[in-house]
Amino acid sequence: MTTLTSAFTAPEVLARSRDLVRPALREAVGRMHPWMAEMAAYSFGWCEIGGDPAAGSGGKGVRLALAVLGAEAAGAPGRAGVPAAVAVELVHAFSLLHDDIMDGDPARRGRPTVWKAYGTGPAVLAGDALFALAVESLADAGPGALRALSAALADLVRGQADDLLFATRPWAGPERVRPDEYRVMAEHKTGALLGCAAALGALLGGAPAATVATLDRAGRQLGIAFQIVDDVLGIWGDPLVTGKPVHGDLRERKKTFPVLAALDSPTPAAARLARLLEADGDPEEIAHLVEGCGGRTAALAEARRHSASVAAVPELRPLLDHLLRREL
Amino acid sequence: MTTLTSAFTAPEVLARSRDLVRPALREAVGRMHPWMAEMAAYSFGWCEIGGDPAAGSGGKGVRLALAVLGAEAAGAPGRAGVPAAVAVELVHAFSLLHDDIMDGDPARRGRPTVWKAYGTGPAVLAGDALFALAVESLADAGPGALRALSAALADLVRGQADDLLFATRPWAGPERVRPDEYRVMAEHKTGALLGCAAALGALLGGAPAATVATLDRAGRQLGIAFQIVDDVLGIWGDPLVTGKPVHGDLRERKKTFPVLAALDSPTPAAARLARLLEADGDPEEIAHLVEGCGGRTAALAEARRHSASVAAVPELRPLLDHLLRREL
Repeated sequence: MTTLTSAFTAPEVLARSRDLVRPALREAVGRMHPWMAEMAAYSFGWCEIGGDPAAGSGGKGVRLALAVLGAEAAGAPGRAGVPAAVAVELVHAFSLLHDDIMDGDPARRGRPTVWKAYGTGPAVLAGDALFALAVESLADAGPGALRALSAALADLVRGQADDLLFATRPWAGPERVRPDEYRVMAEHKTGALLGCAAALGALLGGAPAATVATLDRAGRQLGIAFQIVDDVLGIWGDPLVTGKPVHGDLRERKKTFPVLAALDSPTPAAARLARLLEADGDPEEIAHLVEGCGGRTAALAEARRHSASVAAVPELRPLLDHLLRREL
Repeated sequence: MTTLTSAFTAPEVLARSRDLVRPALREAVGRMHPWMAEMAAYSFGWCEIGGDPAAGSGGKGVRLALAVLGAEAAGAPGRAGVPAAVAVELVHAFSLLHDDIMDGDPARRGRPTVWKAYGTGPAVLAGDALFALAVESLADAGPGALRALSAALADLVRGQADDLLFATRPWAGPERVRPDEYRVMAEHKTGALLGCAAALGALLGGAPAATVATLDRAGRQLGIAFQIVDDVLGIWGDPLVTGKPVHGDLRERKKTFPVLAALDSPTPAAARLARLLEADGDPEEIAHLVEGCGGRTAALAEARRHSASVAAVPELRPLLDHLLRREL
């Protein structure tokens, strides 16, 4: 993947954005019901179970950085994007809490997930509280901001619904999941909130509608590219770097882009791959066949294609570089 | 309880409001992801599991009626309140879906709850989808409307959090739940959305700020009164009328207003009641003691007190009459 250069490195941009946004985010979480605030702080990596301060770093903060960079792309100071950054971070935290329940995931970033630590009911409610707080935090930002946020929320849910339904569909035949459907799902599930972050930042920075739309599109494309790169890492990534088991996504029978692209190739090997997947075959052999059917190459080409429109927004380049290169 | 008279009876008001709002509500639900739309339609009583049309009636539609009446209280036609009615119905449906998961309730209105019928994960997501749709449905209604909705959402979650925490607290001693705390919880959990419904209806009907505030307050008071009457029915109501088992709330060890008021009385009987509750004693005997300690009388007086400010808004009187008299 092409290395892009920028005045700032991604770690610098991410750290600067986190520093800018964190006080407002902490203030917002501090307005929550104390029990909900503890679960929220735990999910952000700020505290341990029970409320003791944590040493951990939490997430990278890609969404909040996009909001800050969106404001800067509008020619405003980054701090103009802070309310947008707070709203999207809260929405992201809400979606992680609820997705972990739906997926039954017991761990995230090496710690028990919120539902595992606090129970399913409280985790559902903490997600709802974060959702409500996100809406509240933008209530004064004008109708355009709330329209953008609610559209992203609707897409987010739609993408998660499709992702859950993909798991119930067969590997072969007319009912199989096509790469095109995957792309739409990834745009909704991952891209919509990234696009919303950048667009909201630009909107609060006073950008004209065309700039807001460009940033929304760039964020969505970044989301698709990011998701597909994640899929590639989930099959061929180095476990020491990704922190995930070898062939983890294949063991979990996830319908990821490389696998779907491989199955879509009109070759005898694709038919053999489908049979192996249906029969719960050896992950090592499946990974080999996916690669042989061109799944890995197709995925990387697809990620590259989607990153082109992101690279056209200079402010977003450091993030693109950081997110997509990783250890590929 | 005083019988109030009005030009329309409550069943007429409720039916008229349902007819007015249903097309817009169905249209909104129709915009959801098909899987989410089925769960939403099932929760509204419009269809059976699988999507076949249902003969059932669904809920009474108190919230949507409050929105319509709120618009009329502002001197506008009831249809001006329809977007408000749609938003609060969607929020109500969201909160029922998630509350049923948190409370582990397997049935509602004689049918399996959504999580029981479709699974916990899908039910969490369907609740989120309803929540997102509610926000979206008001995105164009102006900042005042969204501020009102997001404040109600925050209160709703806060009330549910307190209600869940009440279950973990003791029956006696300084950590016990006081009637005052219960009142605050009920205002948040039940009153906030009723107040929001009436206030939003008035707001969309063009009412001045003072009228909007009066309707919000009246709806909140109605919610507290309604919740306390529900508590009385949950202990002494006729199972044939309420559809709930005799002493159901006592068997489930619920911290309801009559019980908390009884425990708060400075009598030896109150101490005996606390011991019985701690020892998981006979519900029949507990009900008798709660009544002996004045819990039932205190609850009815409390409900009456809160209904006074509702009665001051002529448009809301039929609902008040209908909701609070029931079979007391």
